[in-house]
Amino acid sequence: MSFLTLLDYASVLVFAASGAMVASRAQLDIVGFAFIACLTAVGGGTVRDLLLDRHPVFWVADPMPIVLAALMAVLVFFTAHLVESRLRWVVWLDSFALAIAVPAGTGAAIELGHGPVIVVLMGMATGAFGGLMRDVVCNEVPLVLKQGEPYVSCAMIGAMSAITLVWMELPLNIALLVCAAVTWASRASALLWGWSLPVYKSRPPRQ
Amino acid sequence: MSFLTLLDYASVLVFAASGAMVASRAQLDIVGFAFIACLTAVGGGTVRDLLLDRHPVFWVADPMPIVLAALMAVLVFFTAHLVESRLRWVVWLDSFALAIAVPAGTGAAIELGHGPVIVVLMGMATGAFGGLMRDVVCNEVPLVLKQGEPYVSCAMIGAMSAITLVWMELPLNIALLVCAAVTWASRASALLWGWSLPVYKSRPPRQ
Amino acid sequence: MSFLTLLDYASVLVFAASGAMVASRAQLDIVGFAFIACLTAVGGGTVRDLLLDRHPVFWVADPMPIVLAALMAVLVFFTAHLVESRLRWVVWLDSFALAIAVPAGTGAAIELGHGPVIVVLMGMATGAFGGLMRDVVCNEVPLVLKQGEPYVSCAMIGAMSAITLVWMELPLNIALLVCAAVTWASRASALLWGWSLPVYKSRPPRQ
Repeated sequence: MSFLTLLDYASVLVFAASGAMVASRAQLDIVGFAFIACLTAVGGGTVRDLLLDRHPVFWVADPMPIVLAALMAVLVFFTAHLVESRLRWVVWLDSFALAIAVPAGTGAAIELGHGPVIVVLMGMATGAFGGLMRDVVCNEVPLVLKQGEPYVSCAMIGAMSAITLVWMELPLNIALLVCAAVTWASRASALLWGWSLPVYKSRPPRQ
Repeated sequence: MSFLTLLDYASVLVFAASGAMVASRAQLDIVGFAFIACLTAVGGGTVRDLLLDRHPVFWVADPMPIVLAALMAVLVFFTAHLVESRLRWVVWLDSFALAIAVPAGTGAAIELGHGPVIVVLMGMATGAFGGLMRDVVCNEVPLVLKQGEPYVSCAMIGAMSAITLVWMELPLNIALLVCAAVTWASRASALLWGWSLPVYKSRPPRQ
Repeated sequence: MSFLTLLDYASVLVFAASGAMVASRAQLDIVGFAFIACLTAVGGGTVRDLLLDRHPVFWVADPMPIVLAALMAVLVFFTAHLVESRLRWVVWLDSFALAIAVPAGTGAAIELGHGPVIVVLMGMATGAFGGLMRDVVCNEVPLVLKQGEPYVSCAMIGAMSAITLVWMELPLNIALLVCAAVTWASRASALLWGWSLPVYKSRPPRQ
């Protein structure tokens, strides 16, 4: 099993847990948990594979990710009540999943020989689309779009660090590990210390 | 015309009617009716074809389903006012469409030689995504996610019955007919007798 | 650079501006602006390319549209406060983008040799899906679905004018220019004079 496949698996498990947590906030039944967990888990990677015409889609080639996501959903279904603040858990689980999905998307695009813009975009899309689908389907305000909270920005910084290291001719696996670390560190800092980007403000007197 | 094509057509007509009913609840104009009807009618099958790299997509190869869905939308536009409780109609039409879309998705995946997990997933996706798109675009609470109401679960049971019969070496068409019957019977029972799966409940004192 | 590519570029710039305007209404940060601008700008064309199996997707082949959309987002981020009525701007920018996206979608389908139904549908999808994604992700009421306001209808009329001229054996570029003009003229008339299609009305006493 390649390093890229491992990354896909790990991101699947963590995104599935975050999806199941959101399902618990929507009080779905166990099949609804599994549905949202799978959508969140494989959503970003599926968008990446469709856009890059990378067939078969990773979970069609080997459905293990779906099975893992469904098992994770069942686990969360029976244990989520042990957890105090579920929104907080969603946010932190999501930060780990983001930190794994971004290098997974970046690595896949690099392996296919795409240029830097597409590589960074695929890192961002793989990181952002799973969570975006989860939130749109469950009618939550997308984490991706919380005002001033860096999310897509962290994915972008992570993906850019990977492409820089590859351009400096470091091995791909090292670049992807650094990418994961940079993505997570920036997202975690933003969460811990309330970092934010300046948001758009309309002129006060005219609003 | 193969049995699978027939199933696609029938599910198109019934999903189109359910889409047009939802459009009538949103008070759209006649082109909006046709748009939502087509989205609902071919959405699930299109997702299936894209995921399985089954090109041309069924309605690109032969646009008859689109034409039928648009005609159905026009019919509903001029007759929906004759119907008393439109939400109730949406729910029942949707149950028939589900019962046809699940075997259509299952059959397509079996024909392409996929394994049982992918077959069941494609049955579920073909059944669920048309209605999910309809509800997300029209801002209704997705039927797929109504608390405790089995929907994806019925699709799953139906698809699993088909794969079981094929594994027992029954002919594909028989398996798909049983799949349709099982899907509809479970969904209709759930609607008629208010069957539900236990939903996730947070611990009462802490919520 | 072919005429079709030029059309894609122009529609990218105008859709990006409309996406960034919507982002300004949601008060996102600058990366959020770029994200929504790119989604709006390439969404419709991406759906068209995926459905027609036209790989690589136009912006994967050449990421210039993404770069342009992101630059436009930055421009809007720093200048949108100079604009008085931003919703009004969104609506008019969107009308221009629609008038460019419809011939772009129509032309691509004609070049691939598809029949009239698919050609008209691809014109409509390319025109409508970018704006639809923008509005669904940003939680605005989809412009596509505003009650009685012709939007998809204008796309349809435009696409039908193109296919008619091609059928009359006029050169493709002329047909696409007429398509753009017809689409924009019908949309602008609807906006200026409040044209509307009759919407569905349930029988008053029974509602």
